[in-house]
Amino acid sequence: MAFSNGVNVQNNSTSGSAKANPGRLASVYSEVQTSRLNHPLPLPSILTKPFKLQDGPPSSAAGNPDEIAKLFPNLFGQPSTLLVSSENRALRSDQKLKIGVVLSGGQAPGGHNVISGIFDYMQGLTSGSTLYGFKGGPAGIMKCKYVELTSDFIYPYRNQGGFDMICSGRDKIETPEQFKQAEETSLKLELDGLVVIGGDDSNTNACLLAENFRAKNIKTQVIGCPKTIDGDLKSKEVPASFGFDTACKIYAEMIGNVMTDARSTGKYYHFVRLMGRAASHITLECALQTHPNVTIIGEEVAAKKQTLKNVTDHITDVICKRAELGYNYGVILIPEGLIDFIPEVQQLIAELNEILANDIVDEGGLWKQKLQHQSRLLFEFLPQAIQEQLMLERDPHGNVQVAKIETEKMLISMVETELEKRKLEGKYVGQFKGQSHFFGYEGRCGLPSNFDSMYCYALGYAAGALLHAGKTGLISSVGNLAAPVDEWTVGGTALTSLMDVERRKGKFKPVIKKAMVELEGAPFQKFVSMRDEWALKNRYISPGPIQFYGPASNDINHTLLLELGAQA
Amino acid sequence: MAFSNGVNVQNNSTSGSAKANPGRLASVYSEVQTSRLNHPLPLPSILTKPFKLQDGPPSSAAGNPDEIAKLFPNLFGQPSTLLVSSENRALRSDQKLKIGVVLSGGQAPGGHNVISGIFDYMQGLTSGSTLYGFKGGPAGIMKCKYVELTSDFIYPYRNQGGFDMICSGRDKIETPEQFKQAEETSLKLELDGLVVIGGDDSNTNACLLAENFRAKNIKTQVIGCPKTIDGDLKSKEVPASFGFDTACKIYAEMIGNVMTDARSTGKYYHFVRLMGRAASHITLECALQTHPNVTIIGEEVAAKKQTLKNVTDHITDVICKRAELGYNYGVILIPEGLIDFIPEVQQLIAELNEILANDIVDEGGLWKQKLQHQSRLLFEFLPQAIQEQLMLERDPHGNVQVAKIETEKMLISMVETELEKRKLEGKYVGQFKGQSHFFGYEGRCGLPSNFDSMYCYALGYAAGALLHAGKTGLISSVGNLAAPVDEWTVGGTALTSLMDVERRKGKFKPVIKKAMVELEGAPFQKFVSMRDEWALKNRYISPGPIQFYGPASNDINHTLLLELGAQA
Repeated sequence: MAFSNGVNVQNNSTSGSAKANPGRLASVYSEVQTSRLNHPLPLPSILTKPFKLQDGPPSSAAGNPDEIAKLFPNLFGQPSTLLVSSENRALRSDQKLKIGVVLSGGQAPGGHNVISGIFDYMQGLTSGSTLYGFKGGPAGIMKCKYVELTSDFIYPYRNQGGFDMICSGRDKIETPEQFKQAEETSLKLELDGLVVIGGDDSNTNACLLAENFRAKNIKTQVIGCPKTIDGDLKSKEVPASFGFDTACKIYAEMIGNVMTDARSTGKYYHFVRLMGRAASHITLECALQTHPNVTIIGEEVAAKKQTLKNVTDHITDVICKRAELGYNYGVILIPEGLIDFIPEVQQLIAELNEILANDIVDEGGLWKQKLQHQSRLLFEFLPQAIQEQLMLERDPHGNVQVAKIETEKMLISMVETELEKRKLEGKYVGQFKGQSHFFGYEGRCGLPSNFDSMYCYALGYAAGALLHAGKTGLISSVGNLAAPVDEWTVGGTALTSLMDVERRKGKFKPVIKKAMVELEGAPFQKFVSMRDEWALKNRYISPGPIQFYGPASNDINHTLLLELGAQA
Repeated sequence: MAFSNGVNVQNNSTSGSAKANPGRLASVYSEVQTSRLNHPLPLPSILTKPFKLQDGPPSSAAGNPDEIAKLFPNLFGQPSTLLVSSENRALRSDQKLKIGVVLSGGQAPGGHNVISGIFDYMQGLTSGSTLYGFKGGPAGIMKCKYVELTSDFIYPYRNQGGFDMICSGRDKIETPEQFKQAEETSLKLELDGLVVIGGDDSNTNACLLAENFRAKNIKTQVIGCPKTIDGDLKSKEVPASFGFDTACKIYAEMIGNVMTDARSTGKYYHFVRLMGRAASHITLECALQTHPNVTIIGEEVAAKKQTLKNVTDHITDVICKRAELGYNYGVILIPEGLIDFIPEVQQLIAELNEILANDIVDEGGLWKQKLQHQSRLLFEFLPQAIQEQLMLERDPHGNVQVAKIETEKMLISMVETELEKRKLEGKYVGQFKGQSHFFGYEGRCGLPSNFDSMYCYALGYAAGALLHAGKTGLISSVGNLAAPVDEWTVGGTALTSLMDVERRKGKFKPVIKKAMVELEGAPFQKFVSMRDEWALKNRYISPGPIQFYGPASNDINHTLLLELGAQA
C-alpha cells in the first residue's frame, strides 16, 4: 500500500481489509490550513538550551498506595522529574532511538502536534533515530501495523486537526495474550520507547505496559500524554489535557452566534447540548466564555441529588421570570452526560432493563406496575417520544440506550409541558419556542488553537526528552501555562502517583480518577457568582471564531486560567 | 424605556407589551468582538472623493414589462444610476436629511454595518441629519416605533453580527390600511428617505412603498439593500446579497471539521443539512469550499425530476463504491429545502392534506387506499418515523408541516434500509453508521467576515448617497467585487427592472424572482466537473474558522468569484 506522498507503509497485518488511508494532500488545503503548516511553534526555553533532569522525591499514589504498589512493583514510588537548565547537554546526542507512537481513543485537536514534537525532538537531539506510528490505535501495536514517520510524511499534518495521520482506536491492551502481542511488536521493532497519547484509561494502560516491559526486562520505556477534549484528565502536575481549549472555543463560537440570533429574533429558547459525557468541564467553560441564561452542571445536579423534575423546574422558573421582563428568548447549556448524573434516571433504566429482559410488555401498560413507585412517576413524567425511545431502541445486549437520548429535546418537551401548566395557572405570560442543538463532532477535529498547537508540541517534545533520558511510566507534563510559552515548565509525572484502585469483579484495578468539575473550585465558583445575573440580564458574549493572528489569538481558556489562579 | 447606553427610545406604540431590548454593552464583549469595533472599513474610492450620479438608459423589467408598468406608473422605466467621479461635489452638503432604516426578515451577518454606512454617510456628507431606526421590522414603520440612532448608540454594533440594534420582523406593508400607516409615520417624522434592508419580498415591498409615496406626493424616497444568507437575491447589477459570504464560511468551517472527524474515525457518514429553503446556493458554496463526497442540489433534483428513491439510490451507490475502496465514512450535504424540490413529495403532501381534512384516518390503514398509486408507493417508502410525523404534526390550519421534517435523518434511515437490502444481495460489504447535523442558526448571526463587513458598509454608504441625490425605487448596488475594495463600483439599480409578475388570486403581483442555482452557471459547472472525484477520493478541505487578520481574511466566496468570471 503506497501513501499518496510516496512513503511506504510497513504492514504486518494478516487481515485483508486493511483500512485504506489516502493521507493528506497539502495541495488541496485551504489557505488557512496552508498558513498553519508553517506557523511557528515556540518552545519553552528550557527545551531550547542544554538541560538535565532533576528527579523529585519518591512518589506515592492518589489513593490506596499499598494496592498500587502491589500492582506496579517495578514502578511504584518512582519520582516525578523536571527539566532544569544545565551547563552542558546531559543526554548523549549520538544515541539512535527507535520510538513508537500511538493515538488512543476519541479525537482531540492537537494530536498531530504531539507527534510532530516527538519527531522534531528526535531529529534535533537524537539524530538518526526512527519514529514509528502505530495505525488505528492500540490495535496497531498488537497487530504490528505501523508506518515509519518521516519529515515528508508528517509535514502536511503540522498544526492540523484530526487524528488521521495514523488514526486512533478504542482497543485496550489488557489480556495476557494482548500484552504478549505488544511485547512481540516491541522486540521486533527493537523499540526503545513508546508514547501513548490518550485519556485517563489509555494512560493507565500505558503505565501497565511500562510495568510489564520492565518486569520482562524489555527495554521499551513508555511515556503517556494527556489527551481529551472533555478536560477530565488533569491534576496539579498535569494542568490540562490537550484539545479542551480548541473544542470549547469552537463550541463557544457557535453558542455566541446562537445567542446573537436569540437576541435578534426575540422568540426562541435555544437548548444546546454539549459533548462531554463523564464530566461537565466543557459546558462550564462554554458558560464562562458566553454567559448563557441557564447552565446545567452535572456534578452539581449529582451533589444536590436533583431530579429531572428539579432541573425542569429550574429552567422553567428562569423562563417565567424572563417573560415578566419581556424576554421570550434565551440560551440554555446542557452537558451531554446530564442524565447520567441523575440517580432516579439510573434507577429507572436499571428497572426497565430488568423488565424488558424478563417480562412481557403489554400494550395496555400493565407492565408499568412492576416499576417501583418513584420510577413509575418518573417514567410518566417523561415525554412520550422519550418513553417510546426507551422501550424500543435497545443495544445488542437488549439494554436501553441512554446515550441515544437527545436530552436537549427531552428538556424542551418537559419545559413546554410545565409552561403550559403555569400558563393555565396564570403564572406565565410568555410565548415559548424551543430550538435544539447538539455541538459535538464539530469541535473534536477543528484546527487546533494556538494554545493547543503550542501545548501539544511541547508535550511531544517533552515526551522525546523523557524517553531520551531513559524514563518510563511517566506522563509528559508541561506547566506554568498561564505564563508566556518561554516560561513553561517541562517534566514528567509518575503515572502511579495519579492512580487509585477500583474494585471490579472482585479484583483491584488501577485507575486514574477522572477529574470532575470541583464545586469548590475557582471555575465553578466564578460561574456561581455570576449565573443569577446571566439568567435575567442578557450578558451574552460572542467569542467569535478562533483567531490564529491578532487579538485573542493566544488566549487561554477560562477554566485553565482560573485553576492556575490567574484572572480569566 | 431607557437603553443601557442612555439613549432614549421614542415609542408611539399603544401596546403594553413592548419588547424590551437591553442593547449591547461593549463592556462585556469578547476580545474578538472588541477588536472588531474599530476594524477599519475601507470604502470604494469613488465614495471618498467628489462624485456625481450618472443615469443609464431607461430601464424595463425582468418580465412582463407592460404589467410592471401598470403596477408602477410613477417608477417604471426609470434608469439605474452609477456614481462617477466629479471635479466638485455635485450634492449639496448643507442639506439636513431625515432618514429611516428598517431591517426586514431573517438575520444576516452585516446588517449592522449597512446601518453604520448610512449613518456615516449622513454624518460626513449631510451633517446635522437624523437617522431613525424602526424597531422590529416593517411593523415598526406601521406603528411608528423607532429609536433615533446616534453615534454612541451605533458604536457597539459596528462589525458585529445579528440584527439586534433595532431588531427585525416579518410583517409586510400590503393592505391599504398598512400603506396609510406608513404614510402617517413618514409625514409625522418628515422622512426624506427610508432604507429597507431585506430579501426579494422586502425589496419588492420597498418598491411598492416608493411608488405609493410618489403617487401621493409624499417626499419620502425609498432605497432597498440586498440581504439574505440564502444568496437568492442577485442579478447582473446586484452581484450578491450580504450575509451569504459569512454564513457559508461558518457552515464550511463546521463541515471541514466534521470531514476531518470522519476521516480520523473512519466509521461515520455525516449527513449535513444546511439552511436555505428556496434555493441551494449555500449548499453549493459549502461544497465548493469543502469537497464533500455527495452534495444534493435542489435545483438539479427538480430539473431532472428526481424522486426521493433516486436521491436515496444515488447516495447509496456512492457509499457502496466507497466501501469497495475501504472507506466506510463520508460527508453528505443536503439543502434544507430538498423535499420542496421533489414533485412527487409535493403531490403526496397535497393528497395527505386533503385526506386529513376530510376523511377518517383508520388505524388499519384503509385510508391509504385514497392515495394515488404513486403517492402510496412513496408513503410506504418513507421511514415510519417520517410517516408518523406527517400524520401527527400539523400546523394550525391542519396542514402537514413539511418544514419540520428532518431531511437528514430521513435520508439516513432510507439509505440504511437500501444498504441492508444490498448487503443481502451481496452488493455491499461495508458498515454504515449515519450521524445527522443541521447547520442553520449558527451561521445567521455570526460576526461578519471582512468581506461582508466592507460590502455592507459600502451598501449603506451608497444608500445614503442615493437618498442624498433624491433617488427612489432603487436598490443599492455595489459591484466589481472581485477587485480590491478601492475599485468597487457604486450605484443604484431600478427595482422595477428586476421585477416580473406572478398571477395570484386572479391578480398580477410584482415579484423579484428568486435567483436559483443556475445549472449552466459557473459555480454549478465547476462543482459538476469535480464531484465524481470528490465522491470516491477524499479531497476534503477544511476552510477553518473565519480569520479577521492574516491569510484568507479577505477572501471572497467561490460562488461570487466564479459568477464574476474570476478564478475561485
